[in-house]
Amino acid sequence: MKQGLLIVVSGPSGTGKGTVCTELLNQTPDLAYSISATTRQPREGEVDGRNYYFLTKEKFESMIEAGGFLEYANVYGNYYGTPLKKIEERLAAGEDILLEIDTQGACNVMKKCPDGIFIFLLPPSLSELERRIRGRGTETEESLARRLGAARGEIQIGRQYRYVVVNDTVDAAVKRIQDILTAEHCRVDRNESLFEEIESK
Amino acid sequence: MKQGLLIVVSGPSGTGKGTVCTELLNQTPDLAYSISATTRQPREGEVDGRNYYFLTKEKFESMIEAGGFLEYANVYGNYYGTPLKKIEERLAAGEDILLEIDTQGACNVMKKCPDGIFIFLLPPSLSELERRIRGRGTETEESLARRLGAARGEIQIGRQYRYVVVNDTVDAAVKRIQDILTAEHCRVDRNESLFEEIESK
Repeated sequence: MKQGLLIVVSGPSGTGKGTVCTELLNQTPDLAYSISATTRQPREGEVDGRNYYFLTKEKFESMIEAGGFLEYANVYGNYYGTPLKKIEERLAAGEDILLEIDTQGACNVMKKCPDGIFIFLLPPSLSELERRIRGRGTETEESLARRLGAARGEIQIGRQYRYVVVNDTVDAAVKRIQDILTAEHCRVDRNESLFEEIESK
Repeated sequence: MKQGLLIVVSGPSGTGKGTVCTELLNQTPDLAYSISATTRQPREGEVDGRNYYFLTKEKFESMIEAGGFLEYANVYGNYYGTPLKKIEERLAAGEDILLEIDTQGACNVMKKCPDGIFIFLLPPSLSELERRIRGRGTETEESLARRLGAARGEIQIGRQYRYVVVNDTVDAAVKRIQDILTAEHCRVDRNESLFEEIESK
């Protein structure tokens, strides 16, 4: 059984990675989503077990103790984490799994899973990023300034990723990520069984 | 100026790499072909300066002496080689260049250009490869046996490439190679200028 790909997508807050990942999943039937756990409050319309597993701080911390996360991070006072066990089972079964996590979490996954596919989404520019965050209408000037400062820091961390995709339009970004997945599936070191099969025929 | 990609495609004789590369070039306007030099006789319909530079053995060997080849090899008694100077100029100008060369030549390019993109084409099976070579109708039983033996050896060398693409249909193989090129263009280490540009805006 060929091992599935672990795909990690990050990007500064406001880059539109949620929209890109949702559309990527819609257009890529073979790709499955890893649902993160978090202690933050649900936003309007978010559903427990679909968008996130919404956990109490106590429950989250007991899972940390038990080694139950591939990665976790504390962002703006809330925990976010990737439950480990389901990921391992699904990769072993050959499923490609998408993680949409922040740079802090992704750097932890890089250490544990160097064979993962690390994709960093960039906004076309920082001024466009500011426009998008303002358009969301949920930020105070203070939190906006904090997010933009954080974005600059995150873009620096993006240099540690393998791939960079500019989110100029959602469709173009989705297409590029799909192409990256196709390419990674074509890597020789992921296709030893293909050589053996050809040679045996 | 962003450096162009050097793309190397090889595959056992009869895999259909000529057809795939021709179609790839047709469907990829940004990709240019590196014309090889050879001392073998032109086949019917082949044009000097378009399919190959057809050189005499003496001329070819004097170019070897002068360091004029990125790689060269002697295959079935004929020289094949990639003229160096034009490749360097075009890559520096940001052009993506396609080399269709054999495994012997590709292994030499791997040493000189580790940053190249090495793609190995596989037939769906060895029996299908035999069928395709027979279909060409230009082989004796002896040369067929020699080609099939060589194919087994070449497939072993294919494991040293970065990517493997099965040529089940030409369109599917072309699409996969295009996706590989898109992915390689998205690599962070090929996009330092993108990060600098984003940060400066």
